[in-house]
Amino acid sequence: MAEFELVIRNARAVTAADIFMTDIGVRDGRIVALGLGLAGGTREIDAAGRHVTPGGIDSHCHFDQPTGDGSVMADNFVSGTRSAACGGTTTVIPFACQQKGQSLRAAVEDYHRRAAGKALIDYAFHLIVTDPTPDVLERELPALIAEGLTSFKIYMTYDALKLDDRQMLETLAVARREGAMVMVHAENADCISWLTSKLIAGGHTAPRFHAASRPMLVEREATHRAIAFAELVDVPVLIVHVSGREAIEQIRWAQGNGLRIHAETCPQYLFLSAEDLGCDDSFHGAKCICSPPPRDKANQAVVWEGLENGVFQVFSSDHAPFRFDGPDGKRAHGENASFDQIANGIPGVETRMALLWSEGVMRGRIEPQRFVELTSTNAAKLYGLYPRKGSIAIGADADLVIWNEGQPFTLSNTMLHHNVDYTPYEGMQLHAWPALTLSRGEVVWDGTAPLDAAGRGQFLACDRPGPAQKRRRVDELAL
Amino acid sequence: MAEFELVIRNARAVTAADIFMTDIGVRDGRIVALGLGLAGGTREIDAAGRHVTPGGIDSHCHFDQPTGDGSVMADNFVSGTRSAACGGTTTVIPFACQQKGQSLRAAVEDYHRRAAGKALIDYAFHLIVTDPTPDVLERELPALIAEGLTSFKIYMTYDALKLDDRQMLETLAVARREGAMVMVHAENADCISWLTSKLIAGGHTAPRFHAASRPMLVEREATHRAIAFAELVDVPVLIVHVSGREAIEQIRWAQGNGLRIHAETCPQYLFLSAEDLGCDDSFHGAKCICSPPPRDKANQAVVWEGLENGVFQVFSSDHAPFRFDGPDGKRAHGENASFDQIANGIPGVETRMALLWSEGVMRGRIEPQRFVELTSTNAAKLYGLYPRKGSIAIGADADLVIWNEGQPFTLSNTMLHHNVDYTPYEGMQLHAWPALTLSRGEVVWDGTAPLDAAGRGQFLACDRPGPAQKRRRVDELAL
Amino acid sequence: MAEFELVIRNARAVTAADIFMTDIGVRDGRIVALGLGLAGGTREIDAAGRHVTPGGIDSHCHFDQPTGDGSVMADNFVSGTRSAACGGTTTVIPFACQQKGQSLRAAVEDYHRRAAGKALIDYAFHLIVTDPTPDVLERELPALIAEGLTSFKIYMTYDALKLDDRQMLETLAVARREGAMVMVHAENADCISWLTSKLIAGGHTAPRFHAASRPMLVEREATHRAIAFAELVDVPVLIVHVSGREAIEQIRWAQGNGLRIHAETCPQYLFLSAEDLGCDDSFHGAKCICSPPPRDKANQAVVWEGLENGVFQVFSSDHAPFRFDGPDGKRAHGENASFDQIANGIPGVETRMALLWSEGVMRGRIEPQRFVELTSTNAAKLYGLYPRKGSIAIGADADLVIWNEGQPFTLSNTMLHHNVDYTPYEGMQLHAWPALTLSRGEVVWDGTAPLDAAGRGQFLACDRPGPAQKRRRVDELAL
Amino acid sequence: MAEFELVIRNARAVTAADIFMTDIGVRDGRIVALGLGLAGGTREIDAAGRHVTPGGIDSHCHFDQPTGDGSVMADNFVSGTRSAACGGTTTVIPFACQQKGQSLRAAVEDYHRRAAGKALIDYAFHLIVTDPTPDVLERELPALIAEGLTSFKIYMTYDALKLDDRQMLETLAVARREGAMVMVHAENADCISWLTSKLIAGGHTAPRFHAASRPMLVEREATHRAIAFAELVDVPVLIVHVSGREAIEQIRWAQGNGLRIHAETCPQYLFLSAEDLGCDDSFHGAKCICSPPPRDKANQAVVWEGLENGVFQVFSSDHAPFRFDGPDGKRAHGENASFDQIANGIPGVETRMALLWSEGVMRGRIEPQRFVELTSTNAAKLYGLYPRKGSIAIGADADLVIWNEGQPFTLSNTMLHHNVDYTPYEGMQLHAWPALTLSRGEVVWDGTAPLDAAGRGQFLACDRPGPAQKRRRVDELAL
Repeated sequence: MAEFELVIRNARAVTAADIFMTDIGVRDGRIVALGLGLAGGTREIDAAGRHVTPGGIDSHCHFDQPTGDGSVMADNFVSGTRSAACGGTTTVIPFACQQKGQSLRAAVEDYHRRAAGKALIDYAFHLIVTDPTPDVLERELPALIAEGLTSFKIYMTYDALKLDDRQMLETLAVARREGAMVMVHAENADCISWLTSKLIAGGHTAPRFHAASRPMLVEREATHRAIAFAELVDVPVLIVHVSGREAIEQIRWAQGNGLRIHAETCPQYLFLSAEDLGCDDSFHGAKCICSPPPRDKANQAVVWEGLENGVFQVFSSDHAPFRFDGPDGKRAHGENASFDQIANGIPGVETRMALLWSEGVMRGRIEPQRFVELTSTNAAKLYGLYPRKGSIAIGADADLVIWNEGQPFTLSNTMLHHNVDYTPYEGMQLHAWPALTLSRGEVVWDGTAPLDAAGRGQFLACDRPGPAQKRRRVDELAL
Repeated sequence: MAEFELVIRNARAVTAADIFMTDIGVRDGRIVALGLGLAGGTREIDAAGRHVTPGGIDSHCHFDQPTGDGSVMADNFVSGTRSAACGGTTTVIPFACQQKGQSLRAAVEDYHRRAAGKALIDYAFHLIVTDPTPDVLERELPALIAEGLTSFKIYMTYDALKLDDRQMLETLAVARREGAMVMVHAENADCISWLTSKLIAGGHTAPRFHAASRPMLVEREATHRAIAFAELVDVPVLIVHVSGREAIEQIRWAQGNGLRIHAETCPQYLFLSAEDLGCDDSFHGAKCICSPPPRDKANQAVVWEGLENGVFQVFSSDHAPFRFDGPDGKRAHGENASFDQIANGIPGVETRMALLWSEGVMRGRIEPQRFVELTSTNAAKLYGLYPRKGSIAIGADADLVIWNEGQPFTLSNTMLHHNVDYTPYEGMQLHAWPALTLSRGEVVWDGTAPLDAAGRGQFLACDRPGPAQKRRRVDELAL
Repeated sequence: MAEFELVIRNARAVTAADIFMTDIGVRDGRIVALGLGLAGGTREIDAAGRHVTPGGIDSHCHFDQPTGDGSVMADNFVSGTRSAACGGTTTVIPFACQQKGQSLRAAVEDYHRRAAGKALIDYAFHLIVTDPTPDVLERELPALIAEGLTSFKIYMTYDALKLDDRQMLETLAVARREGAMVMVHAENADCISWLTSKLIAGGHTAPRFHAASRPMLVEREATHRAIAFAELVDVPVLIVHVSGREAIEQIRWAQGNGLRIHAETCPQYLFLSAEDLGCDDSFHGAKCICSPPPRDKANQAVVWEGLENGVFQVFSSDHAPFRFDGPDGKRAHGENASFDQIANGIPGVETRMALLWSEGVMRGRIEPQRFVELTSTNAAKLYGLYPRKGSIAIGADADLVIWNEGQPFTLSNTMLHHNVDYTPYEGMQLHAWPALTLSRGEVVWDGTAPLDAAGRGQFLACDRPGPAQKRRRVDELAL
Repeated sequence: MAEFELVIRNARAVTAADIFMTDIGVRDGRIVALGLGLAGGTREIDAAGRHVTPGGIDSHCHFDQPTGDGSVMADNFVSGTRSAACGGTTTVIPFACQQKGQSLRAAVEDYHRRAAGKALIDYAFHLIVTDPTPDVLERELPALIAEGLTSFKIYMTYDALKLDDRQMLETLAVARREGAMVMVHAENADCISWLTSKLIAGGHTAPRFHAASRPMLVEREATHRAIAFAELVDVPVLIVHVSGREAIEQIRWAQGNGLRIHAETCPQYLFLSAEDLGCDDSFHGAKCICSPPPRDKANQAVVWEGLENGVFQVFSSDHAPFRFDGPDGKRAHGENASFDQIANGIPGVETRMALLWSEGVMRGRIEPQRFVELTSTNAAKLYGLYPRKGSIAIGADADLVIWNEGQPFTLSNTMLHHNVDYTPYEGMQLHAWPALTLSRGEVVWDGTAPLDAAGRGQFLACDRPGPAQKRRRVDELAL
């Protein structure tokens, strides 16, 4: 009998620290042996010296999330996790979003129902806290954290989602007490609504005015404020989807002054710009409407620098899937809808890994190890999935990607497996794509087609990211 | 007949730029001649080579302002302007404060009634906008600005006063359109209320916890936000009563990046510290409760640097007079009131000028010209009183101070002429005090007593500070 | 008999602080009376409401200074001061430059000989210290400072001029002990020589490579170093001819951290860019060779901001006059000379004031008062000429400019009175020029021609800028 | 026959990214297998769940280096590598130091002779370039780099060692062309010599004045300059032994602006302060004389932050061993020698790892992975020893430390194995020490005594750190 259920031979394994040639022995879906010349496996795969990385963790993606505004997300857990797997992602963490007035528990139960029996790869949930009543703060959140929902996102914008400053502080205080991680969508709501009303009053309603309605300073202000609140409450936070220089300067200032501020960016801030929202009033720009909006080339360069110099810990997709054609996506309110009525978000769960490998690693901007850190390891650590996920190490799940590199191809939506009818990166020349994706030792993408096994993916209860390193400011007053 | 109604001989005249020996000839209350050996005056005063500065403009002081919380301001326009004059101030700009639900016009008319027939020196009004209804924004504010109320203060804290972000933007936009000046009280309301509730829940109610309830970052955050809003709307603002390093860093960043952000500080941030709020739970610390609270020695040093290097344009008192003893001041809610119920503010209209001359000019920290700029000229320019007020120049009102310097004395509240029963600076050794204060050529303080002439002071209609130098960001969208 | 030798009627007088309508009465070449309706003057000039500013002080200009490299300065004290006067400047402070091996005393005596009987307007001398021997430091400098040469320039580049770090420290220490002001030319010599040798080795010898040979970081580095030395020795310094963002950031950092670092910029950093050195290899670009080189539009904008927000105290010309045609100026080594052999400097003593009034004041970038501060008052104060020079105040010399504004004209070198055969600003559209320049009450430029009175200008002994406000760092060790 | 020559069982293996339970299989001195339940080894060690880290790389230590000033280093390769091994270090990179006038080749050959047959653990050499003649730059350096001496240190201070700015640029340019790594000792020589002469002239000669002679700004200035040169030449540099806030701010500015500036700090900047140089004039302070000098508590905190937030890549000892007693160490010039004559440096090769584990990891300031990165992995990568050294990965040398944790003990020099008669950390309470150190699978420290095997250590030829990611500034000019 073979010693291993699977052996991957001659892998150029990459972790967040190291690169080394090894065979990888898998048993019970876990990595149990590293070394060249391992004994035989029931199944063997020859990596032939290709890079093998941990499977990606997409810690910011939206599947089958109710929008409440008439639009419908194109991807549910079936298509979303299938698309993820085909792009080299083996864990997703979408959001169980509380509706105002709803209990968190109800939101989680609803989301479990939406996920049940559908996922191809493993998944965890973030919470979105929109209504932090005393019951939510004192009872529901601690209970859900204890059950493995250890991270939650809060919004500083969107009427349906946003918290006011006091609610943010109360919610951060729970995170501190319970050791949870808070993700912050940092844009100033009132600035956006004021600009939007001015723009619309002026007849500036086309998709491209979406960018004008949320300029960088709107993000900078909210970022500064979120940092100040984290400092006051003395708790780490993670600023999601950072788009450019002004927000980065705030984050870097904080990181340099001893605050535990983490940051995430996404492919749209490396590869798209406001010009992609259109140079005229055509509806086509709706395809690239997301928030914060993509900025410009100069900001793309600063985001790249942030990936290199450590400002960012996480590179996620913020996959928010809406169809361009048809009645329920970008056009839910018609082509003449003003920009603020257009479904907000772009797809990207499948392209995230290849974009960064191709344009980041292969062009020499970042090391392969940094790629692994950004796409997998850090998310696992920050959200309590480590060491089960996020590395190639003894005991870890055999969630792996074997990379095909060097054959340039033109990206097209026809290659993708999501349920969205476009990709913002249509036509880009890429040089890498996963040859194989394995989830717990099972090939879920073989380079041609996804495994037809909706439902094999497991829900992951997350650990608390760990007792926060406590500082003293507030403690002196026993707050 | 004498050519001048008054000649001040042998003055060491100081303007914001210059120092020179001169006689000063006054006619019709205005400076009409400078030069040594002027013809005779009906009245002559020999300055004997002493420094003569423009009379102070205290552009941040509160007299007879309804508080709405049970406390009563100890100074009305009689005692307030009397105290100001005895301390070398010849113009005050207190606040006509709109109550929520009240029309601005009604607030102004009420405040005119409070002032009528009482002032010893000239006065203008700032508005406080607390309820920016469409009618206020579109009709009342433009009309009042046209009538000479060209500056208004907005609050980011205090339930009874604060605007939300959208209201701030709307109000700033009016200021931009009309060329008015906006003063901002920058502290984050929700942070303060959250900390306050935590402190009180923990039994930390003594006056000294006032400082703990509004730490520097609370001021920093709001300062950053106010700057961002000013940038978005493309309008200058003036941040009032800046207390220390973190807020100064935000302001200096803005000033260095082309934004027209002005800043004010006050004596309490040079001479008081949080320790003055008490080291134990005694009520005595209530005497120094003001907002933002005084910080510490290190912050005092940074504020001094800001006076030297140009961060600050204005040095005002923020005189907010409440008696320590008696039923209607600091003790309005009793000695056991928690810190947040104690009347918030300290007196200082009379001591402002002498403190800065004695500790700033005479100790060599700032030049006499900078003193004039900070205490008089800049306020005149920023609030539309220049060139009538703010300098020693042909055509300006003969509002002057002749300084006594060099005889040290111990400051005591018994020397002061306000209606407050204490001064926070009791016991300080000073080296300068006005020998004489003149308002429009008339001696209103002769070194011994104020002139008994309540009602001689005139209301000043202010000019618009001038068409703001326009920048482009927002204009492109015709906002 | 008239009371005044001169009365200027109806002047809109501008000081560094104020603007006011006044007559200006002059006696013995000094301003003795201000006020409307002054008694009669032997001579009367009707300013007719036009702006009248203090005459300019050009505190950075080179006349008849030996170059030692074959080129010859085109302007001596006759043409230099004539040109200055025609442009509204009434005081110049050129440089008595020590040759290595020469005594300072000999350099000063030589320079006095060059100036004697030639100047149309008043002048003082800065020293240039190139050889700080013990005798220079311990004996000559203190003696010359006592005699009124109270400022000296030191160079961080140019083989013939530069000091090493130790020499800089020794020289700064003398300035500290004696209360003198040190001007620093901040560019890193070795970086420039290394780049130059690389460029020349690569055949890149045309004038435009002058800019490539001294990029901004070369100036930034030296600026940081000069600031560090000033901090170590605890003495103020003035960084001359600052060209753009990177150096400004260093200076602003220092000013914000309590260091007394002053800064100067020049018209070339507002109106020229590296493109003016040529886009091809034509020799024409030699006309704009100066150091630091002009940068680009973005840096011009940052320099403008520095004029507005107080980074800069002084706006001078750095007039360094070399003819473009003829054998002894820019072509002294022929047209094929490599960029580093071309005489380094551009003319500008006559255009400085009008450029800043026209493009700064009239376009609303700076206030008239700030213009006066930058072009006159601050130089007078920093170099010990105040209050005799630098303001419109009782007792000051009647050095005045009456401005013609509003008639646009095209600047051409034919209008100028220097002895250089070009101006870098040829063809610029200006909107202002001095209608009249007065030096000690005498009209030296009447709008048509300079006064033919070489030799009337007087040498000015300067006061020490004043006992520096001492800080403590070094004193603790009695250094 | 056993499959492995050694198996370490039940290790809690730590890499720069991961922690995982594993056995470690070793063959031919290399790690060849990871996994629990490995086959048997000829030798087996039970780690019993203890942390196992890669052996330390001390990339900054001095052994048997000629000093040229009368003092003699106490440690040669025998005692130095023995001490290193006992402290958990398995690779050292001391310096082959060129004497001025000497060829680099000769310096290297001499150093090989000093090392030959003595080392207990593996070693590489850095070069110290003190005399960059054309022959050195064009011929010797490229040849030595090709032979595996791929890093060199340059000094900005010390007469016998320092390069001038031009020499630095020339040397950096070679590093760029050849792909070598440059380490910079950044302190301004002239500032130090000027301060030193002032101090000594003032009779301030005691050891404690060493700190006063090289204040932080002296380090800040040189750091800024080194960064500017690296930017100009477009090459990475590593700033060694950074001591505090001002230098860190420069480095962090550079890292945030896209420059590849690396930084190192040492235990003395975490655990010592200027007070350790003495509060009186006693000679005892000589024990802590090193450069830069230790600063104060506030700077220690900033250095800790730099370890946490990524400013620092490397944590080394700067072991520079001089005996306190005896004629040839600190007292080489007698007890009355002025501070600048005292042998400069402190021991630390043995205590480095335990200090950081005990005070950094065990107190929760840094993660174990960050410890590995700082003490081993990054040095391996930056100096071309990776992947042979610096990790626990398949194919890497089995250089390992098994940690004893949790038993507090008081550090005393009697426990140490260097040849210095004191440790600056005498009396510190520590909580961790290596239980076992393995070099290529061989136990060189067994918790009680070092292996008696001088000479088993091998010389390591280093790879080039790799083709620098090229930027463009200089390339445009083909420099």
